[in-house]
Amino acid sequence: MRTVVKDAYPTRNRIVPESIARMDPVVWGSSPGPLDSSAVDAYETRGFHTTEALLAANDVGNLLEETSRLGRELGNDERVVREHAGGDVRSIFDVHRLSDLVDSIVRRPGIAGIARQLLGSDVYIHQSRLNVKPGFRGGPFYWHSDFETWHAEDGMPTPRALSISIALTENYGYNGGLMIMPGSHKTFVSSAGETPDDYYRESLVTHVPPTGSPDEDTLTRMCAEFGITTFRGSAGSATVFDSNCMHGSNGNITPLPRSNLFVVFNSVENTPVEPFAASKPRPSYLGSRDFTPLS
Amino acid sequence: MRTVVKDAYPTRNRIVPESIARMDPVVWGSSPGPLDSSAVDAYETRGFHTTEALLAANDVGNLLEETSRLGRELGNDERVVREHAGGDVRSIFDVHRLSDLVDSIVRRPGIAGIARQLLGSDVYIHQSRLNVKPGFRGGPFYWHSDFETWHAEDGMPTPRALSISIALTENYGYNGGLMIMPGSHKTFVSSAGETPDDYYRESLVTHVPPTGSPDEDTLTRMCAEFGITTFRGSAGSATVFDSNCMHGSNGNITPLPRSNLFVVFNSVENTPVEPFAASKPRPSYLGSRDFTPLS
Repeated sequence: MRTVVKDAYPTRNRIVPESIARMDPVVWGSSPGPLDSSAVDAYETRGFHTTEALLAANDVGNLLEETSRLGRELGNDERVVREHAGGDVRSIFDVHRLSDLVDSIVRRPGIAGIARQLLGSDVYIHQSRLNVKPGFRGGPFYWHSDFETWHAEDGMPTPRALSISIALTENYGYNGGLMIMPGSHKTFVSSAGETPDDYYRESLVTHVPPTGSPDEDTLTRMCAEFGITTFRGSAGSATVFDSNCMHGSNGNITPLPRSNLFVVFNSVENTPVEPFAASKPRPSYLGSRDFTPLS
Repeated sequence: MRTVVKDAYPTRNRIVPESIARMDPVVWGSSPGPLDSSAVDAYETRGFHTTEALLAANDVGNLLEETSRLGRELGNDERVVREHAGGDVRSIFDVHRLSDLVDSIVRRPGIAGIARQLLGSDVYIHQSRLNVKPGFRGGPFYWHSDFETWHAEDGMPTPRALSISIALTENYGYNGGLMIMPGSHKTFVSSAGETPDDYYRESLVTHVPPTGSPDEDTLTRMCAEFGITTFRGSAGSATVFDSNCMHGSNGNITPLPRSNLFVVFNSVENTPVEPFAASKPRPSYLGSRDFTPLS
């Protein structure tokens, strides 16, 4: 008999878009960790925290080399998203399992420790990837909440998860970097569209509205209420952000490419069930089913 | 007999892209005018000048209303570029002739006077337009020098021209605004592509490389040498920039639209001849053939 889980965050296939006040905490408990209390308070209020030098120059160099190596060695592996068959690498998924280097970096107390502190429990990695966004033709990624996708398509029950995006190249604020609506993480916005089968094949390339994205009226209201924050920072700087932040990125015509290491930490007390709005869970390299806590 | 004009800035149909040091001054003479000498010096060096409040709130409101009025009244007039037939206005050209309001504003000593000061002569309007760039789906406009286009397609002999872009909405730096490579105005970069007949119909919507744009290697080198400047400012703020600045704009997924009044002033000592690299001149609403100096 399938267990019935009440859906506190209904989404997809909606006739009228709904905005629901978040019922779950942003910061779980008051565990000690790498962030001081003012950083934790700001994270609770805005939904994100930035840090100047989460990785040293040496780590950055090694990770860029690792991206090239994995791209060369993995060929047509489904975990590698390329521009076209045999073409340049755009993303490599599951890098904490594919690479000892990535595994050792993400387990550092200064990285996984931030997730344990904010989520108030042990954590495991729901998804990891190395991204390479080229200059000149980098495409936009439309507004969405990651939690909306992970809830609908992976079965993540609540937004007790966060992402750490570590820059491997400089973010200038105009080369297609992350834009977040600060404070938006306290509202869950349902998405109108149905989830097509194997939608991830499309949504990894560009987040096509309406599936997984709010309607324009809702986005206009949210932008007026919350505004938009962009990020500048050297390679090695990072943004930690709540799984329910409304975010997106513009395209990039500048010659300046962007690379980053992106890791999603989920609480071991929030492990996924069946998808809430998709016929089957996405592949495990997009939404892990291995819930072993990071040591 | 057709007058033969030596082409000091060859472009289009090139086998190998060429970068040519600018042979003409940026600032012509030392006429007095609205800008102080440090502003003039900075313009000479960087190729642009920004000003916080070129228009008052009242002017901004009137111009936004004028844009709506002209959009309603002009219907399918070729000077109006719409999203699709009967759709939202994207640009209205020749607004200094279509609108007494625009005409009176651009003639102000604080506006046309800047052009006379920097170009060292009387000036006329080569092109004017009111632009409305929508939120959510605003497209990118690829890197180009305006002078490259005006030279190739309109027959403008030298870069003794400048543009004034006056914001009618706020520029946030992430809603698809102008990006300029400061200092790039002192290098003329030829463009590889041929000029298709009636290319302006396409190039007004998005600047498709390679026609009118440098190759990627050249842009990468220029970006490393010059960097990129973006602009923030309230409605009423303005950027004055040399006709040969390398510039472009990213797309805009934010809900924040952008409107501006864009006016190109050309020296009366630099009036267009036959196009240097096109079969016929563009329509006069894109490159005026009325050289009457502004009084």
